[in-house]
Amino acid sequence: MDKRVASVSRRRFLGRAASLLAATGLLARGADEVAAAEPPEVPPWMKAPGAGFSPYGAPSKYESKVTRTLMRSQPGTTGSGAIRTPLEALEGTITPSGLHFERSHSGVPEIDPDQHRLLIHGMVKRPLIFTIDALLRYPMVSRVHFLECSGNSQLMYQPAPPNLTAGQTHGLVSCSDWTGVPLRLLLEEAGVDRGGEWILAEGADAAAMSRSIPMAKAIDDAILALFQNGERLRPENGYPLRLFLPGWEGNMSVKWLRRLKVVAAPIMTKDETSRYTDLQADGKSLMFTYPMEVKSVITQPSHGMTLKGAGLYQMSGIAWSGNGTIKKVELSTDGGATWRDAALTTPVLPRALTRFRLPWRWDGGAAILKSRATDDAGGVQPERARFIAEHGSNAVFHYNAIAAWSVAPNGEVKHVYA
Amino acid sequence: MDKRVASVSRRRFLGRAASLLAATGLLARGADEVAAAEPPEVPPWMKAPGAGFSPYGAPSKYESKVTRTLMRSQPGTTGSGAIRTPLEALEGTITPSGLHFERSHSGVPEIDPDQHRLLIHGMVKRPLIFTIDALLRYPMVSRVHFLECSGNSQLMYQPAPPNLTAGQTHGLVSCSDWTGVPLRLLLEEAGVDRGGEWILAEGADAAAMSRSIPMAKAIDDAILALFQNGERLRPENGYPLRLFLPGWEGNMSVKWLRRLKVVAAPIMTKDETSRYTDLQADGKSLMFTYPMEVKSVITQPSHGMTLKGAGLYQMSGIAWSGNGTIKKVELSTDGGATWRDAALTTPVLPRALTRFRLPWRWDGGAAILKSRATDDAGGVQPERARFIAEHGSNAVFHYNAIAAWSVAPNGEVKHVYA
Repeated sequence: MDKRVASVSRRRFLGRAASLLAATGLLARGADEVAAAEPPEVPPWMKAPGAGFSPYGAPSKYESKVTRTLMRSQPGTTGSGAIRTPLEALEGTITPSGLHFERSHSGVPEIDPDQHRLLIHGMVKRPLIFTIDALLRYPMVSRVHFLECSGNSQLMYQPAPPNLTAGQTHGLVSCSDWTGVPLRLLLEEAGVDRGGEWILAEGADAAAMSRSIPMAKAIDDAILALFQNGERLRPENGYPLRLFLPGWEGNMSVKWLRRLKVVAAPIMTKDETSRYTDLQADGKSLMFTYPMEVKSVITQPSHGMTLKGAGLYQMSGIAWSGNGTIKKVELSTDGGATWRDAALTTPVLPRALTRFRLPWRWDGGAAILKSRATDDAGGVQPERARFIAEHGSNAVFHYNAIAAWSVAPNGEVKHVYA
Repeated sequence: MDKRVASVSRRRFLGRAASLLAATGLLARGADEVAAAEPPEVPPWMKAPGAGFSPYGAPSKYESKVTRTLMRSQPGTTGSGAIRTPLEALEGTITPSGLHFERSHSGVPEIDPDQHRLLIHGMVKRPLIFTIDALLRYPMVSRVHFLECSGNSQLMYQPAPPNLTAGQTHGLVSCSDWTGVPLRLLLEEAGVDRGGEWILAEGADAAAMSRSIPMAKAIDDAILALFQNGERLRPENGYPLRLFLPGWEGNMSVKWLRRLKVVAAPIMTKDETSRYTDLQADGKSLMFTYPMEVKSVITQPSHGMTLKGAGLYQMSGIAWSGNGTIKKVELSTDGGATWRDAALTTPVLPRALTRFRLPWRWDGGAAILKSRATDDAGGVQPERARFIAEHGSNAVFHYNAIAAWSVAPNGEVKHVYA
């Protein structure tokens, strides 16, 4: 301990303490003042040795309710649909891999990594085929990025609030530390022919999920991801290999990737014509709407929770933008009449979940909480009314309007359109 | 897709491609040039729907060997000892919570969070007792930090190389996104008396693991951690509450925290007198050696692996320092005669694992690989000979010397002292 540092910190602490206490009145958040009993009561779990070691750990049994939420799967299928991250139970910005959302089109294939191959062909000088072992020898990069299903929050296109938790409305977004080989390197090796402006990416699931990827994205920041949060990809997130396109709608980061075919123009696969287009109010559809727009949601407090009396609370939530870096998150407790800037947890990374927080002294009256995110590309999250006026309510994808939670005098928090 | 951006990227790509290929000769890393068969062979897992959704996911069965390694537990106990992170199987910088190392002194208590209490008492104006629910209302911070057991790499004090993997020698270090309440806030609330310069921190395990914490650290950056990588703490990492002291030896981040007693001087608990002192060559012991010194290890390739023939490889590993931020990692392939700077994955965060990487063209001859980390506090990782000359080999803690892996012409990689 450096004495000088210690005493500086100490002075700073004593100086701050009084002002912070005065400003926020920290006490009465639920802490009880007690007689200084010593020693404190010894709980039963201190009276006998605890459990032994586990080769691969799991959450406490007391957290068994914190799971992904299956909203629905396609009729007659077991693995076509989506399962959501319980955002309201989480903090920080990394999503544990066991709770990362999943969107699958025909279930999760059980792929033997020794048998899996990646083929790069089409308009290239040297068609190449890679084993996973071969890919593991290539230079890699690691990047923290969110992944969001373009159908996230689709229930909020409906005319009435769906009355669901933050995870159920917004939980098709998660964030991981992704590691893999820059796609650019493999394209260099294959040698892209002049005119090869697109790439068909195909998955090795029973749906052969397929999308057309613009070459500019492929050579800019696309990753052939092999690792997720340190370990190899989870099966439901593409084991042993997925494409990862930072910031773009999740289905384009094709899972269980087996083929990249360089082509001159988009292939118009079933997944980009019958699906993943955005039907507008005038009956026309938008196609190839790639980046996920700037968005945010308050996770604490949020729908389904009950505040325990007036006093100080912390509002906390996540913001993200497929177009860049979150620059600002504003919070309102009066339905959008006034706004205050929230604190952003650093480092704020591009195309990653950003945690925001702000203390809030609830006076016990009715309140409406909103968060509004702004990114460094100039995007500002719109109010729902404006968003629906612009896009109509026929679409199911790319919903990014402001979410509102009402707080009733009895402490109940509910999803509202406000 | 912005056309202008696309064409700029494209030109940059075409310009780079030739130079990169020329410089590194990327081909012949294991990719095979093939006739462009179309469509490629359809594997069995594309011919039937895959598995359904799981509420809490797990790794692929093909990764079942990637587990924590139990080196030994204390005789006659089931939960006293340490289990290590398999560093050689991981990439990036976040450690999945299921593989985070664990050091426990009497097993893992199964704590009911509703029954758990934190008592702050001793030299304070208002002794306070907190439930977990009360703590969850406080302002929180999230920080990515490594945690390292002071006994990490202790086998390398031995005169002969222990012939173990990177995880077995260095796997008592892991890195997570930790979220919790700054301890400073609760100390402000309790009101520290003048002269309260230390804090006794006590765990609710059967060992009542206890350490004395200097007040300066407590008010600087100590966190009462409730969340790890987004979800609530894992049981073996302190559920429902642990102290977290960024950069300091792991045992001081007391798990299952139940009591903080403000005192005037260190308590001299069993855990800081009979344990966690560093016996030097002259028979004297160092006490209260808090920060974990600057350190690094190459994880790819590393002991126990076999290179498959001469050619291009990627060297990859992790570096960290309890004294600050990693500034530089140098790599040598000739036993330390010459060094080259590795690339560091950004953002490089203080007191966090930092991933380094460097391409290496192996000529097929004998080689000795070393990594040497430098931090922004001026710390440089020492060679083993110098480290042992300074500290002797009586100690078991705070070993941070350079690790060396030999590569034999047959490709075998082994741990050596060199």
